[in-house]
Amino acid sequence: MRHMEPSQALSLRSLLETQQVASLATLHEGEPAVSMVPYALLPQGQGFIIHVSRLATHTADMLISPVVALLVLAPPEASPSPLALPRASIQGKAQQWANDLPAHSQARALYLSRFPQSEEMFSFADFSLFVIAVRSVRFVGGFGQARSITTEQFASIMGAAP
Amino acid sequence: MRHMEPSQALSLRSLLETQQVASLATLHEGEPAVSMVPYALLPQGQGFIIHVSRLATHTADMLISPVVALLVLAPPEASPSPLALPRASIQGKAQQWANDLPAHSQARALYLSRFPQSEEMFSFADFSLFVIAVRSVRFVGGFGQARSITTEQFASIMGAAP
Repeated sequence: MRHMEPSQALSLRSLLETQQVASLATLHEGEPAVSMVPYALLPQGQGFIIHVSRLATHTADMLISPVVALLVLAPPEASPSPLALPRASIQGKAQQWANDLPAHSQARALYLSRFPQSEEMFSFADFSLFVIAVRSVRFVGGFGQARSITTEQFASIMGAAP
Repeated sequence: MRHMEPSQALSLRSLLETQQVASLATLHEGEPAVSMVPYALLPQGQGFIIHVSRLATHTADMLISPVVALLVLAPPEASPSPLALPRASIQGKAQQWANDLPAHSQARALYLSRFPQSEEMFSFADFSLFVIAVRSVRFVGGFGQARSITTEQFASIMGAAP
């Protein structure tokens, strides 16, 4: 697999660090479904942190079928043409992180540093953290600039010194 | 099913008419996948028009499994909290519209009125129009403002005099 040019790697990283919400695709009764989720990032490309209610359909979907996909899209002003908007499609695997997991408090802190208004929701019994580990990424940086990225390459891109 | 308040119906319609791209979730080898698609709207809520290449994975996915989902999301500035961003999740069914279909020229014109830069792509043999018919919509207008909408209600909302 080709290496990404440093400028493209930087664009991908900047997209994921700048945006705050993703489209989450889950398998719902055998059919694709897509909803919005706010996300934070674990360091070193270890995954996307989301905080969801078990009353939401996507949460039930992830518990039954953990294979999911995420799309992070640049805002409209990022490109003069909507056809060339930078975006990253991520194939991932979702796992619920229980409150007593040692890494839970770090993930919670990272999530709350992005979304301080969510603090109260951490006291709701129906909410829990999920981490979506990255299996592969397809990054489209603009017209004719599409690259596939492995888990290892993603970890390297997200873990490099800024 | 409850009727939507007129202000909410207007918000949904405005969201779909203002935004230009959606997240398209397809079934890919039994797993959910999600990508970006620019879209235009058929009148009267008859569906979303997209123009895609058969070289793209989502096109192959739709030809094998036409059940898809779309997410249209308001831009970041639409809400002080990313958790409350207005968005519409659409369950739909995708159908390829051949060039010789009588309705093709109307769909093409509607698509090109939104994306004039796509004109050249209509001469590429690998590109074709798909229309995604709406089976149901879940509209979240903000915190605690979620509504499910049937095909009939959607047609009424999108077909009402502006």
